[in-house]
Amino acid sequence: MFNFTIKNKSKISSARTGVIETDRGRIHTPIFMPVGTLATVKSVSPEELKAAGAQIILGNTYHLYLRPGCDVIERFAGVHRFMNWDRPILTDSGGFQVFSLAKLSRISEEGYAFQSHIDGSRHLLTPEKSVEIQQCLGSDISMCLDQCLQYPAEYSETESSLELTARWAKRCKDARAESDAGGTLFGIVQGGMFNDLRRRSLESTVEIGFNGYAVGGLSVGEPKDEMLAVADFTIPRLPEHAPRYVMGVGTPEDLVELSGMGADMFDCVIPTRNARNGQLFTRRGAINICNARFKYDMEPVDAQCDCYTCRHYSGAYLRHLYMARELLAYRLNTLHNLHYYLDLMQQIRTAIDRDAFEEFKRDFYALRIT
Amino acid sequence: MFNFTIKNKSKISSARTGVIETDRGRIHTPIFMPVGTLATVKSVSPEELKAAGAQIILGNTYHLYLRPGCDVIERFAGVHRFMNWDRPILTDSGGFQVFSLAKLSRISEEGYAFQSHIDGSRHLLTPEKSVEIQQCLGSDISMCLDQCLQYPAEYSETESSLELTARWAKRCKDARAESDAGGTLFGIVQGGMFNDLRRRSLESTVEIGFNGYAVGGLSVGEPKDEMLAVADFTIPRLPEHAPRYVMGVGTPEDLVELSGMGADMFDCVIPTRNARNGQLFTRRGAINICNARFKYDMEPVDAQCDCYTCRHYSGAYLRHLYMARELLAYRLNTLHNLHYYLDLMQQIRTAIDRDAFEEFKRDFYALRIT
Repeated sequence: MFNFTIKNKSKISSARTGVIETDRGRIHTPIFMPVGTLATVKSVSPEELKAAGAQIILGNTYHLYLRPGCDVIERFAGVHRFMNWDRPILTDSGGFQVFSLAKLSRISEEGYAFQSHIDGSRHLLTPEKSVEIQQCLGSDISMCLDQCLQYPAEYSETESSLELTARWAKRCKDARAESDAGGTLFGIVQGGMFNDLRRRSLESTVEIGFNGYAVGGLSVGEPKDEMLAVADFTIPRLPEHAPRYVMGVGTPEDLVELSGMGADMFDCVIPTRNARNGQLFTRRGAINICNARFKYDMEPVDAQCDCYTCRHYSGAYLRHLYMARELLAYRLNTLHNLHYYLDLMQQIRTAIDRDAFEEFKRDFYALRIT
Repeated sequence: MFNFTIKNKSKISSARTGVIETDRGRIHTPIFMPVGTLATVKSVSPEELKAAGAQIILGNTYHLYLRPGCDVIERFAGVHRFMNWDRPILTDSGGFQVFSLAKLSRISEEGYAFQSHIDGSRHLLTPEKSVEIQQCLGSDISMCLDQCLQYPAEYSETESSLELTARWAKRCKDARAESDAGGTLFGIVQGGMFNDLRRRSLESTVEIGFNGYAVGGLSVGEPKDEMLAVADFTIPRLPEHAPRYVMGVGTPEDLVELSGMGADMFDCVIPTRNARNGQLFTRRGAINICNARFKYDMEPVDAQCDCYTCRHYSGAYLRHLYMARELLAYRLNTLHNLHYYLDLMQQIRTAIDRDAFEEFKRDFYALRIT
């Protein structure tokens, strides 16, 4: 079962709220998906994820395929039971990680030949294999294997990559059709920073036909204004009645901007990774907990935040834990940042539902001092 | 307020149960105290500690004095509020850590002169200073500054160290008498591996007079049978109507043996540190979660354990997390081991209360296969 219903559309922008229905529950959009690379959102428990408001998390196919491996996960009939998470999971195709992490990866019409970054073992990731792995992982939303390019990329290279991505998308769809797995499959629009190529990729992906569409190839090193321009061109052109997922994006500002363009789903390592580097998000901007101004700070880092961390701990304690590299630091920081991101999405949804997204956006920026 | 009442005494051994009353609540003995060196029991939250059954935790004076420092902690009127823990805290004197961690430490009649292992800064830890720091930390049970020796130590060296320890104990008691701090102060019996020196140290410490007595200088490298022999000589000779605390000990077997000798309190890094090294305690003995036999194991590591970890996660998942060095691994392993230790103490208390400690001990050993 997979269904998407638009709940409310902004009258003055492309922003919209909606509900995705899956076999593992409903997802209210626009939504941020915490990244749970290795069947764990680093440092936090499933119960904490739920308390922070996570409706769906992301798992990384490349990582899980290598470790613990499908032979382990299939005994648990998927990642959910393995990691004690009963809400939906979206898995990427593995392509991006092969491209960014694997050793000696080589792309051909067939797929990616690569060596594991862990033990150097050789693997071949084809569109069919990616679909098969994601089904083994029990994914609720699988992604087509695509080719993602680094920034900057030449026009001709971008053109051939989107053509390959389209042929692979067709193979992914065919591979899924032959199986009886649950969940659904999303297509991915590539095309780099070229609007005409984005349009071509979009048209060919929509022609194949998927239950949802992602915009890939953003946040790969391009300047922010270029990212926003490509998103602004691409997102509103995606089919209206399917979820629109912007992959690997972004900052709190990005989520606000892209929601305004009609994006429904996001994932990004920023809240979790930056938490582990001592950066905390607040209504007034991001802070670094190492800063000496927190040494004696008896207040929570965000007095208005009602996350577990801010309800129980001071800036001084968080700074102390972080300076001592205590394990609890990573967890308390991660809980705070996830709460910030998930609460931001809740605020965005509420604003859109009340036809007050522009006012929300104005207030969001007005509060920020950094 | 500090009070100790014996609840039940074994008819055939020195084992006993009791209740320590403090301003921050009652402690049922014999008890294990998880080590919370830097105002955090590594990787776990105060709520999780309580759920695991922790009645009191230990803080390390040396560490907290250096980081975050008393100037920070006194703003919070002690460690409790700083770290969000409202149950009792016992603090050590700092002497053992100066001895084992600090650079260039030099001992004299006055105290320990040492350099911080963090930044090389110079400090002088006197008995008076140790008492003052522990009061600043808001300690419910403070410990006298003592001199601990490495194993093996010569008779004459051991003799002078226990004499110094006794003079320091007097100075600690006097320093406390001049303040109006809450909590109480325990004396420490040294004397190395020599029974006559243990007896002398015990007599001089008891002569000064404290609300509780610790046995220090064990688990410093000596063979297990020597440790048990010294404990067996010392513990039953301690004043009956005061809590008896064996410092820095030990394995599950040690806790069983020493409880049988009439010890009331223990602290040790074994359950927490070993958890972070992948060792998990079970009724059948300790296991290493790296072991390949857990790769496909869908069962919890201890099917009879009702800790959070065993209720929700399989051996295969714990192995996966640990092999990938995921942050959640340290937490789930720590929760399990703390639960094991705290539950073991609960079983010991129940057995003593039922006059069935010997049977408990027999069953405890009968189950173990490693």
